Amino acid sequence: MPIDSTYPKSFASDNHAGVHPAILEAIAAANDGDAPAYGDDRWTAAFERRTKEVFGDRAEGFVVLNGAGANMVGLALMLGRYDSVICADSAHIATHETGAAERLLGVKLVTVPTPDGKLRPNDITSRLDAIGTHHEPQPRVVSVSQVTEFGTCYSPAELAELAEVAHRSGMRLHVDGARLANAAAYLDCDLRAITTEAGVDVFSFGGTKNGALAAEAVVVLDDTLLHAVPFLRRQSLQLASKMRFVAAQLCALLTDDLWRHNAAHANQMARRLAAGAAEMAGVRVVHPVESNAVFAVLPEPVVAALKQRYLFEYWDRTAGLVRWMTAYDTTPDHVDDFLDDLRKALMP
Amino acid sequence: MPIDSTYPKSFASDNHAGVHPAILEAIAAANDGDAPAYGDDRWTAAFERRTKEVFGDRAEGFVVLNGAGANMVGLALMLGRYDSVICADSAHIATHETGAAERLLGVKLVTVPTPDGKLRPNDITSRLDAIGTHHEPQPRVVSVSQVTEFGTCYSPAELAELAEVAHRSGMRLHVDGARLANAAAYLDCDLRAITTEAGVDVFSFGGTKNGALAAEAVVVLDDTLLHAVPFLRRQSLQLASKMRFVAAQLCALLTDDLWRHNAAHANQMARRLAAGAAEMAGVRVVHPVESNAVFAVLPEPVVAALKQRYLFEYWDRTAGLVRWMTAYDTTPDHVDDFLDDLRKALMP
Amino acid sequence: MPIDSTYPKSFASDNHAGVHPAILEAIAAANDGDAPAYGDDRWTAAFERRTKEVFGDRAEGFVVLNGAGANMVGLALMLGRYDSVICADSAHIATHETGAAERLLGVKLVTVPTPDGKLRPNDITSRLDAIGTHHEPQPRVVSVSQVTEFGTCYSPAELAELAEVAHRSGMRLHVDGARLANAAAYLDCDLRAITTEAGVDVFSFGGTKNGALAAEAVVVLDDTLLHAVPFLRRQSLQLASKMRFVAAQLCALLTDDLWRHNAAHANQMARRLAAGAAEMAGVRVVHPVESNAVFAVLPEPVVAALKQRYLFEYWDRTAGLVRWMTAYDTTPDHVDDFLDDLRKALMP
Amino acid sequence: MPIDSTYPKSFASDNHAGVHPAILEAIAAANDGDAPAYGDDRWTAAFERRTKEVFGDRAEGFVVLNGAGANMVGLALMLGRYDSVICADSAHIATHETGAAERLLGVKLVTVPTPDGKLRPNDITSRLDAIGTHHEPQPRVVSVSQVTEFGTCYSPAELAELAEVAHRSGMRLHVDGARLANAAAYLDCDLRAITTEAGVDVFSFGGTKNGALAAEAVVVLDDTLLHAVPFLRRQSLQLASKMRFVAAQLCALLTDDLWRHNAAHANQMARRLAAGAAEMAGVRVVHPVESNAVFAVLPEPVVAALKQRYLFEYWDRTAGLVRWMTAYDTTPDHVDDFLDDLRKALMP
Repeated sequence: MPIDSTYPKSFASDNHAGVHPAILEAIAAANDGDAPAYGDDRWTAAFERRTKEVFGDRAEGFVVLNGAGANMVGLALMLGRYDSVICADSAHIATHETGAAERLLGVKLVTVPTPDGKLRPNDITSRLDAIGTHHEPQPRVVSVSQVTEFGTCYSPAELAELAEVAHRSGMRLHVDGARLANAAAYLDCDLRAITTEAGVDVFSFGGTKNGALAAEAVVVLDDTLLHAVPFLRRQSLQLASKMRFVAAQLCALLTDDLWRHNAAHANQMARRLAAGAAEMAGVRVVHPVESNAVFAVLPEPVVAALKQRYLFEYWDRTAGLVRWMTAYDTTPDHVDDFLDDLRKALMP
Repeated sequence: MPIDSTYPKSFASDNHAGVHPAILEAIAAANDGDAPAYGDDRWTAAFERRTKEVFGDRAEGFVVLNGAGANMVGLALMLGRYDSVICADSAHIATHETGAAERLLGVKLVTVPTPDGKLRPNDITSRLDAIGTHHEPQPRVVSVSQVTEFGTCYSPAELAELAEVAHRSGMRLHVDGARLANAAAYLDCDLRAITTEAGVDVFSFGGTKNGALAAEAVVVLDDTLLHAVPFLRRQSLQLASKMRFVAAQLCALLTDDLWRHNAAHANQMARRLAAGAAEMAGVRVVHPVESNAVFAVLPEPVVAALKQRYLFEYWDRTAGLVRWMTAYDTTPDHVDDFLDDLRKALMP
Repeated sequence: MPIDSTYPKSFASDNHAGVHPAILEAIAAANDGDAPAYGDDRWTAAFERRTKEVFGDRAEGFVVLNGAGANMVGLALMLGRYDSVICADSAHIATHETGAAERLLGVKLVTVPTPDGKLRPNDITSRLDAIGTHHEPQPRVVSVSQVTEFGTCYSPAELAELAEVAHRSGMRLHVDGARLANAAAYLDCDLRAITTEAGVDVFSFGGTKNGALAAEAVVVLDDTLLHAVPFLRRQSLQLASKMRFVAAQLCALLTDDLWRHNAAHANQMARRLAAGAAEMAGVRVVHPVESNAVFAVLPEPVVAALKQRYLFEYWDRTAGLVRWMTAYDTTPDHVDDFLDDLRKALMP
Repeated sequence: MPIDSTYPKSFASDNHAGVHPAILEAIAAANDGDAPAYGDDRWTAAFERRTKEVFGDRAEGFVVLNGAGANMVGLALMLGRYDSVICADSAHIATHETGAAERLLGVKLVTVPTPDGKLRPNDITSRLDAIGTHHEPQPRVVSVSQVTEFGTCYSPAELAELAEVAHRSGMRLHVDGARLANAAAYLDCDLRAITTEAGVDVFSFGGTKNGALAAEAVVVLDDTLLHAVPFLRRQSLQLASKMRFVAAQLCALLTDDLWRHNAAHANQMARRLAAGAAEMAGVRVVHPVESNAVFAVLPEPVVAALKQRYLFEYWDRTAGLVRWMTAYDTTPDHVDDFLDDLRKALMP
């Protein structure tokens, strides 16, 4: 659907938003003569230093191109040929990456039904019977999304418990952090509280959904895995030749807490949207709003009417469940206009 | 090696260059409010239309993230589980993509020694014994690089003959066009003369080495392959969420023949460099200079001295063979300074 | 656990049984001088002819080495790089082949919970939303087990309906027929009634669990798939060099209905076992006994006592569910002795 | 081509021969009531003990189904996702396994031209430039065939030197021992002299070409690799359910040196054949006859005439090169008859 700049603000996805001005400036500033390719440049070096400042000295950051790529590189580090991954059945790696985990990694995803997208310790311990049985792939990684695909967050304590359970069974903990910034903003904690300090082994840190043009990172906290990253990144088609322009985006996000500013704002807009919608008869908000996503059940004709003006998607058409996303550049007016239109659509 | 803007122009690779101003402007211009993700935007639509204008109505263009990604998506379209690819043993897919063809596609590359990086018809026909033998993978694709890794070019007639030989044996012709623009500039022909009109089935069209930030395309000329592209692109980690910013770069390159302007200039600088170097005793230019690469053999101490000031690489250290690349933004002064320094290094 | 010939009859698996004398004789008879390797022999030719007589003229049979191999070759024929398979979550390919489908084929198994191991049409139609969405693998094959892992059978009509549903959505129907003979014996029908005539596209026909030493076949009913079989079989490590000795086993099974004789006998022994056990207080038989498997729930101490004398396995330890298998050479006395011992174990 | 027992002895392959009577008896003897499946039986236990007696205490033997399977399981143990294998360009894994190494393992084979199928230390050391370069797969395994595909043998000292070179560079040494017995017979040494004592890490030990029905083993000498074997064997479709019948064959071969008796006889017949042929004008024997293979160049009409009566194959039709194989059951009369017919065919 072609849109132009007069189109109303999208509520379909945070990746419908454009690039934050500070990030676009950082890209332009990196266009400063020649620089070695493939990461041997000063912007990438700066990102690597900044990663240690933000996530701790053990943290090694690697620039990649997109979220699915960050997941596949991160998981590849920890998985052999006959291993499996325990994850929620709603996990992005299980539902929205076209089977990349199966094709590119060749591993089985052991998917667990959850009420809210969050794994609990028992979801892991109850799936360890396969260990040692040569007819079954061996559980090697627990992968969680922070924030989850339902917009919910793991607390630092919840993550630490999952890490403890995973490590006790010889597994590692992976975090798909496409929206890690939104989680830290919601939890009002440092990024390292939900990664390094929680016992995470490998995670991704997403920039694209938080105002970047295209910039993600794989961060490795287990130094026995480090040597493999450059090879797996290159082989997995996630190595940028002019890497400086990706690294510069991540640097901008990690400067003056732009990541937190953007994420906190998006989260606040989602709360405003949820609060407004929840008051309306005919609308039911169905998950705690802990990030920049609002899930709501509403009548089909109302959805149809609203979709005349706004971009957003059904999450489960049968259930009448829709997802509304806010972004770093969603304004209170955007939300209020949307709520007005929702209110009108709900009227008979 | 950290460099700054006062560092001399790099002769190591065309991807050491920055972004052409017109392309950076196109990126900024695409930052115009919201747009649907994953290609459902007006910049991608414009690129698709432009592809047809440039390469012909049959041509369908798909935006991807980098050159190796373009190769892997393009080849995946044409290869089943027990197939093989015939290519030069110098081919980028065989030498510089960390075995991605083997791991991501699971296919064998049947590599052919060549004097100049170019396949000849006999290189194909002499390797068809495997056909029908169930102990051997089946040759299904001929893949050539245009320009080759030695900077040489296939003429339209040479490509057409390869296509004819491939098709006659039930194979398809793939072109790794990371530097397709440089070839068309050298050959002084339209882009379609060395793709659509030559009988190519699938090719990549590179932007990154020609002034883009990061922008490549897979172009498909066989419509029976089209349905698979979106799935393979997504699964192969080559789908940009904010695709408009990649499409906008390709559109800029395809506007007012910026691609040709950039490539022709880089080629001209390489010729200037080769001409100057060839005159010097102690330097031997070893391949025809048909693009923006110069291959030269020179004494080890000369290389060492020159590397004190300039970035460039040995291609074959044992043979004393180095590669010098020029870029869209290499100036005559850059070349002349380099030649001066080369001359000094050659003096005892 | 080392056992000798005085060990009581195993109820753990039909592959604990030895080789039927007629099959051992067929192997010895095939040891008749030299024969070309890799299937170019007269025993393999005889098997191919016999396949057509048994399954119909369209049926092409290919000798392979084991059940998992038959599944992987059969499925590979029908699956591209971004495809998925819909199957029961109890399917052997999903639970007992160490993730071979994911690693060797690179595809996702979309697993469906079922009460009895059997897919219903709605299990398929409710999982077709992915079609056309490039973020999800594309459903291409429905795979069912006949008999299922719970010992239940699909009627010819049930299979035909699944085939119809699959074909209508552009999918194919695959049958894991490791115990196809037991199904035909239970259903009292020809083998072709539950394969060719039911609209199946590719199936495996198991010999090993029915008295062979090691002999399975992939049978292909869709001639557009035929050309790929020899290549995929070889590449998948399922090609026997001295194939005559495998083909001879399959020929023996297909001669004078030995397959039916063996399977019907095993089925009858399972019914005898189930009938005897069902009468005992403290034992609950939990699935219809439609083949040579009996599933029963019984108290843990009873299981422990019985395991002192007999080989058999828990299917679900938490649920107290065990599986007892009979074989072609299980005798009424074996069953009656087992029932006696079960009765004693149940007494306080 | 259908053949019967009156067909002349095949000189095409050692796998055209049938099963040695002692091995057939061992299979029949193993048909002794029930036995646990998947290797938990007393014949497999006996094979494991015998492996240690023959190859040394460090040696752990694993039963597999065929030679390509033994290679793929053995190599999989040692190879990660971005690794490569250095091998001769004539290696069976590179030429006759339908790209299984590429598809099943996803690795690149770095193939080296050789005059006689044998790798030399310099073939390895000259291909290590890739180490540490993230654009190239990392050399991790050197794989040699013993005997080679040209019928030549590595001496224990040659193997030890290759092992030393491999280990020094962080690589492991793999031996495709489909005809390991023929090598030990030719070299007149123990099997352990060319495996354990030579520093080999993983090798296969072939039975099928030496009189078995179908029986191969993967033997692991590096105990850090052991834990992975059962999983990779099962996943790679190389696990026999009724494994006792495969183990029993290997036990028979390893009893009373049947392996050496069979191999030495086949070797002797090849020498007889080569000696006879070499004396004839018009025939040129082209490789040292160090096993049971004879390579000869002879005129096309002579080949055509001889093929009227005998099964054998061109190795390189253009070069007029044929391969003649002898087997454990080739008799002096078979050879002499063949030589007579060759002599007649050579006469005008």
